Amino acid sequence: MVSFAVIGHQAVTDGTFNLNDLPGSGGRMDLLCRCVQASLFLSHGIREEALCYLILAGGPGADKTVRFEGKTVRSLSPDERSSASFIKKAGVIPAGSLYRDVSPGVQVRKGGLGVLLSEQKFGILDESGIDIRQVPLSEIPDAFLLSDHQNFSSEEEEQIRNLPRFSLGPQILHADHAIVLLWNEIDRRRSEWS
Amino acid sequence: MVSFAVIGHQAVTDGTFNLNDLPGSGGRMDLLCRCVQASLFLSHGIREEALCYLILAGGPGADKTVRFEGKTVRSLSPDERSSASFIKKAGVIPAGSLYRDVSPGVQVRKGGLGVLLSEQKFGILDESGIDIRQVPLSEIPDAFLLSDHQNFSSEEEEQIRNLPRFSLGPQILHADHAIVLLWNEIDRRRSEWS
Repeated sequence: MVSFAVIGHQAVTDGTFNLNDLPGSGGRMDLLCRCVQASLFLSHGIREEALCYLILAGGPGADKTVRFEGKTVRSLSPDERSSASFIKKAGVIPAGSLYRDVSPGVQVRKGGLGVLLSEQKFGILDESGIDIRQVPLSEIPDAFLLSDHQNFSSEEEEQIRNLPRFSLGPQILHADHAIVLLWNEIDRRRSEWS
Repeated sequence: MVSFAVIGHQAVTDGTFNLNDLPGSGGRMDLLCRCVQASLFLSHGIREEALCYLILAGGPGADKTVRFEGKTVRSLSPDERSSASFIKKAGVIPAGSLYRDVSPGVQVRKGGLGVLLSEQKFGILDESGIDIRQVPLSEIPDAFLLSDHQNFSSEEEEQIRNLPRFSLGPQILHADHAIVLLWNEIDRRRSEWS
């Protein structure tokens, strides 16, 4: 399984955003939707071993996490609006501390970064990290944590300060583009490309 | 300048598609919009030397080409709907054989693949092509041609049969993901990463 978790610092938790205005009303929900797409989609299929966690941290109320699982997700299309409609549906389900089903392969729970970090060891993307191309396959994490259009907050940096850091290239990229590059590196290593 | 041209085989030419249904009414316009985003956007800026050509080949009428230029484009956001609104506007402008302005940095003309191929030498993405990581920077083209969710047609294959072919990895990816990988390769080579 390969997991990608993305913190949406302004992403609204309660599903009240407008599908016709994902960037504004959703708190850059467009970017989170493209992260789902980059995590799960091949040209003509779904990556069955992919998990994408969206941390909705823009309120109201406590953070929530929406999880998309490649193996079991149904009726998901690659366009932003498709993922967004699932996130909207997740927002109105009464969320507890355990995941609850939104639809096949999509779940929601209360809780954000803290609980996710307690469950899994993530690699962090950071321009000062080690170049991912120089890392042996055995040392490439199977989970990565990314931030949306904002940097990690100082509180988040404190929580992740001991995690390994990787860089992808000389430019600072959108989170969804970073996921594309990470998958490519994993795909190549597994197939012994280069 | 680095150019990416994407053939939208079913992408409608006349701007009549619904912004709330880009995949269906637009003929997979969502994918073309993400190609604009992948071509032009960095995390906090625009790639000024990027050009993105969308070949709308889904009728009605003759093919049209919409061109987005990083250096001059204004008011473009990374979400699909933003690019789509420019493509919609382009569709209703009477298009001639020369580019006409839709808005700053966005232009439209009649004509599709044939005229584009007569103007520029493109590299093609093909799973049987040479691995892009093995190609010296001086031999990496400054223009790439990609197809949408459909393969190149036999007629298109005939038109591009003499162009150099490159591959990006063991998986077949969406066109927008391919653009992300190409930019990363170019970014790395220019900065002498690896």
